[in-house]
Amino acid sequence: MIVAHLKPPYYAVIFTTIIANNAEGYLKTAQRMETLAKLQKGYLGIESARNEIGITVSYWQTLDDILHWKNNVEHVLARNLGREKWYTQYQLRICKVEREYGFLK
Amino acid sequence: MIVAHLKPPYYAVIFTTIIANNAEGYLKTAQRMETLAKLQKGYLGIESARNEIGITVSYWQTLDDILHWKNNVEHVLARNLGREKWYTQYQLRICKVEREYGFLK
Repeated sequence: MIVAHLKPPYYAVIFTTIIANNAEGYLKTAQRMETLAKLQKGYLGIESARNEIGITVSYWQTLDDILHWKNNVEHVLARNLGREKWYTQYQLRICKVEREYGFLK
Repeated sequence: MIVAHLKPPYYAVIFTTIIANNAEGYLKTAQRMETLAKLQKGYLGIESARNEIGITVSYWQTLDDILHWKNNVEHVLARNLGREKWYTQYQLRICKVEREYGFLK
């Protein structure tokens, strides 16, 4: 799903990943993290796509909201498991969204 | 490919799209735009994934570099064609990347 109609300024976390071939348990944990993210303060939306690489962008009202989600205990455990078992590589970027434009046919 | 080792602050354009079923010519034009983007001043990298939605994130040194790419004549034509023929919906976000973290196994 595309997240539309947010009002800048707000924040985006761009999380780009490469997953190991035998990433057992990954999908279930990724889905659980998405469900959990939606319950957090300041959560605005999430967009996700994967083929050769995965890109997940989550949107947040403030930097504090991102920090709060980063420190969520269940999220910390999942992240550690991710580094240990699932991710071959990732890059995480914290961005301030300054402008946005939408198109809907 | 994951774009790693960039040095904040720099800029990201998050372009999230839904493509019509019969998007003839889309892939060729998308590839051409990627090739052309790489030739522009201030271009730092691009990441792309698609399944139900497409997410393409391009990285740029400055806002001026993004504006310059936006106004590139061939890019303007491709964008018009996109709205006319290919895109059902899109959202484009211009962001300042403030921090980044990488992981490589």
